[in-house]
Amino acid sequence: MALSSTTHALGIRDEVTALKRTRTIASAVELFYENGYENTTLEAVAERLGVTKPFIYVHFSSKTELLAEICSHGIASSIEAIDSVLSLKVSATEKLRLLGERFVAAVLGSQKHIAIFSREEKNLLPADLERINEMRRMFDRKLTALLRRGIETGEFGIADAHVAALAIGGMVSWAYVWFRPTGRLSLDEVAAEMSQLILQMVTSGKPDGGRKRK
Amino acid sequence: MALSSTTHALGIRDEVTALKRTRTIASAVELFYENGYENTTLEAVAERLGVTKPFIYVHFSSKTELLAEICSHGIASSIEAIDSVLSLKVSATEKLRLLGERFVAAVLGSQKHIAIFSREEKNLLPADLERINEMRRMFDRKLTALLRRGIETGEFGIADAHVAALAIGGMVSWAYVWFRPTGRLSLDEVAAEMSQLILQMVTSGKPDGGRKRK
Repeated sequence: MALSSTTHALGIRDEVTALKRTRTIASAVELFYENGYENTTLEAVAERLGVTKPFIYVHFSSKTELLAEICSHGIASSIEAIDSVLSLKVSATEKLRLLGERFVAAVLGSQKHIAIFSREEKNLLPADLERINEMRRMFDRKLTALLRRGIETGEFGIADAHVAALAIGGMVSWAYVWFRPTGRLSLDEVAAEMSQLILQMVTSGKPDGGRKRK
Repeated sequence: MALSSTTHALGIRDEVTALKRTRTIASAVELFYENGYENTTLEAVAERLGVTKPFIYVHFSSKTELLAEICSHGIASSIEAIDSVLSLKVSATEKLRLLGERFVAAVLGSQKHIAIFSREEKNLLPADLERINEMRRMFDRKLTALLRRGIETGEFGIADAHVAALAIGGMVSWAYVWFRPTGRLSLDEVAAEMSQLILQMVTSGKPDGGRKRK
């Protein structure tokens, strides 16, 4: 009973911590996006949140740590997306179809974060940039492995799984540049269309499976 | 005879002007790429070239004009690439195959320019940024029109030509991030592979032409 109560209390504390972190990041995203990283102080982030600077220091030891958290958001969400499909007991084709949709959703749910990463990369600590680049390589390796699996089963007909993985990474990542939430297509429509294009790119188009090129 | 001589002299003068502009841009690309736009002075660009600042002012009235020239290089080369294939008397499929190769070559020949654009966009004058964005939209319109043509002829089987154009733009443009001139694949090999992936993405894979989805 005491244990259960403690667990419950810890649960709430963790949730509060997570909420505070999330809200701090959201506030920083808006300000870094609007005014740039260098023109934004931690005081301004605190003010936007309606708190004082020590509130932020409990969760982030520096402005650069906050930047690193924001810059890694898009790739962290993308890794979550690929991990969520790799564990499924379905064909490589179905995994790739789901990944296309979830990867687009992850990127477009991080649109401002990725724009900030693109602009402020030079302000990251070298160790943080290296960690983010390693996450990107991890995503590429997981996607390459999925494509190789589909080549082995005859579902996919591509010559170079690694280049295809980078091509898929590019076509989806680039959507942060052009997607407008108020545009002709909704996020879900873009996700479905891009997923279809990815499948067409790697599959042979034949109903009976794949055509191996080499 | 006098006319011919004048024309000849003007030709040389134009060539010298073009050479000086090209060398100035190349010097600025290196310095902006290595040290950032804000940390680079026109004096430093001149010094790297072994000339004095007035030499540069003959061709560029300001550092921001030089930045605009650099930032528009990738998209200007990409528009040249698509214009060069649109004028050919070949099928939409063959145009797209050639475009894939030439577009990749244009992007990878502007790798540092595009990296500088990505980082320094905020330092462009609004009018220059708008001009570059209009060039991007022009490229998208030309590529969308080519894809629509291929849908009409039954060569391409895609539902949304505009999303497919943006997907192609993304997969190729993103190559500036990952391509390494000393890597596993040469520029020509990457260009051929990406071109093949683009064709697979938009065509049905059937030897008899296209499969229309709607």
